[in-house]
Amino acid sequence: MKSSPLCLVASLLLLAPLVVPAAEPPPAPVKAAPPATMAELLAASQPADWRALDPENTLYLELTNGRVVIELAPAYAPRHVANVKALAREHYWDGLAMLRAQENYVVQWGDPDAEKPALARPVKTAQRTLPPEFERAVDPGLPFVRLPDGDVYAPEVGFSAGFPVARDPRAGKTWLIHTYGMVGAGRDEAVDSGGGTELYVCIGQAPRQLDRNVTLLGRVVQGMEWLTTLPRGTAAMGFYQLPAQRAPIKSVRVAADVPPAERSALELLRTDTPLFQQLIAARRNRREAWYHYPAGRIDISAVPLPVR
Amino acid sequence: MKSSPLCLVASLLLLAPLVVPAAEPPPAPVKAAPPATMAELLAASQPADWRALDPENTLYLELTNGRVVIELAPAYAPRHVANVKALAREHYWDGLAMLRAQENYVVQWGDPDAEKPALARPVKTAQRTLPPEFERAVDPGLPFVRLPDGDVYAPEVGFSAGFPVARDPRAGKTWLIHTYGMVGAGRDEAVDSGGGTELYVCIGQAPRQLDRNVTLLGRVVQGMEWLTTLPRGTAAMGFYQLPAQRAPIKSVRVAADVPPAERSALELLRTDTPLFQQLIAARRNRREAWYHYPAGRIDISAVPLPVR
Repeated sequence: MKSSPLCLVASLLLLAPLVVPAAEPPPAPVKAAPPATMAELLAASQPADWRALDPENTLYLELTNGRVVIELAPAYAPRHVANVKALAREHYWDGLAMLRAQENYVVQWGDPDAEKPALARPVKTAQRTLPPEFERAVDPGLPFVRLPDGDVYAPEVGFSAGFPVARDPRAGKTWLIHTYGMVGAGRDEAVDSGGGTELYVCIGQAPRQLDRNVTLLGRVVQGMEWLTTLPRGTAAMGFYQLPAQRAPIKSVRVAADVPPAERSALELLRTDTPLFQQLIAARRNRREAWYHYPAGRIDISAVPLPVR
Repeated sequence: MKSSPLCLVASLLLLAPLVVPAAEPPPAPVKAAPPATMAELLAASQPADWRALDPENTLYLELTNGRVVIELAPAYAPRHVANVKALAREHYWDGLAMLRAQENYVVQWGDPDAEKPALARPVKTAQRTLPPEFERAVDPGLPFVRLPDGDVYAPEVGFSAGFPVARDPRAGKTWLIHTYGMVGAGRDEAVDSGGGTELYVCIGQAPRQLDRNVTLLGRVVQGMEWLTTLPRGTAAMGFYQLPAQRAPIKSVRVAADVPPAERSALELLRTDTPLFQQLIAARRNRREAWYHYPAGRIDISAVPLPVR
């Protein structure tokens, strides 16, 4: 398995020009004025700016090519998170497969025989379906770092404990939103027909039209490349036509159940710190020399969530 | 080469639920009230709602796995489009390679030896660099279909002749924007250091911070899956570390130079029609039975541009 912290590398690399730079004359003296660049901010970060993943709320999806690390969001989908952990602990997905890879939309995995009662993998201690957890009441105890530039879809957007969220202060509601790498529980037409046995990950442009239509329960923090590079399925909705086309799932485990030596030692940048506010400022007004026109604004889907 | 119209399929599939639907009872009678669904609108479309690609402004990037079809945008980047066509016509890219695939950002191709004068592929009739074409003056003669829900980055966004664009009416300027599948001319730090010899395609969340920082010159209308599934490069910025990791480019051709029988016969939905307005309405308020909560709004990056 590749162990390079791709998310961080990818985030850092957004700083960089789109062509390999030619040898340049020595740079001009660094501007002293804020905002700094993200690279400068991360280089100056302190241990308290980072948080370790909680092994009890981390999933490892083990594919042939590598490990996908998912942080679960019990504050937003407590029943779905508990159910997905129960499914992992009964080894529900082991030996099942990636079912779907649809260009600019989602990959999805689960039991290809789920609709065939005689063949479907049994669900033992977990639940096959659950009531939806599309939104929750705003809790003043949950941190919320609001972004300053608005949002096309929601009255307010920002970050809460590392996850992208929206809020409607008048309704007193908040919900996880569909950005790149977010993980949700697929469902059929009935809103209570999901539960986590089929999980999907957003692999393209943020499909925000799904917000409050599906229960989101986590986010991929490492290993997106093992999902995004899967061959696209050629049947309707990107499903694979033939069983042999489906990438097998070796296992899905709760990190706490994996021997410590085999865990992915990752830290995520906290989103409730002054440093994260500086990072947002740095990304709204890019100071890297390559940039000609700093946007001065940022969409929530474009805010990096560094991992190391 | 796969010839299925993936863009259309992918767009249509966004209508569909995230889980294979179980066998359902017969659906209730279709609601008569507008807005319809996109599927209904496309089924009712007339020939005049579609336009053929202009072979003189279409590029075929031929990879080992298949063909990537790019529509060029001479109205927005006339010099870059002319230069890219000149490069294709001198077979500049034939035998060169994909240089870079960076997760949730871009893939990029060109000459891996471009910075080594002794080894670099010569540019013959074309130009190696050009002044930037980051924006242009608003031309009342160019159609502009404005989206109703605003934008985080620009005063106005919408579609012009099939391309996603932004406008600043006070400055009288308009520009192509970075959404999924848009094609641009990589550049070094100097704004006039690009010209089209290295081209990139956006493969993840729309990197709107690049707007007006790089010259966009077209959009992939078919074959995105051959780019998005490329293994990610593991060197800085997603560049490949070893030459053997780079997917080779068989050729890049202007469609007009390809025998008619070998061209991809594609039509794109026009964006300056009442039908396209209805499609936007249908995508803002999803009427498909699966949707529990129609967003009532849409981001420009989420508007499908159907291809058949």
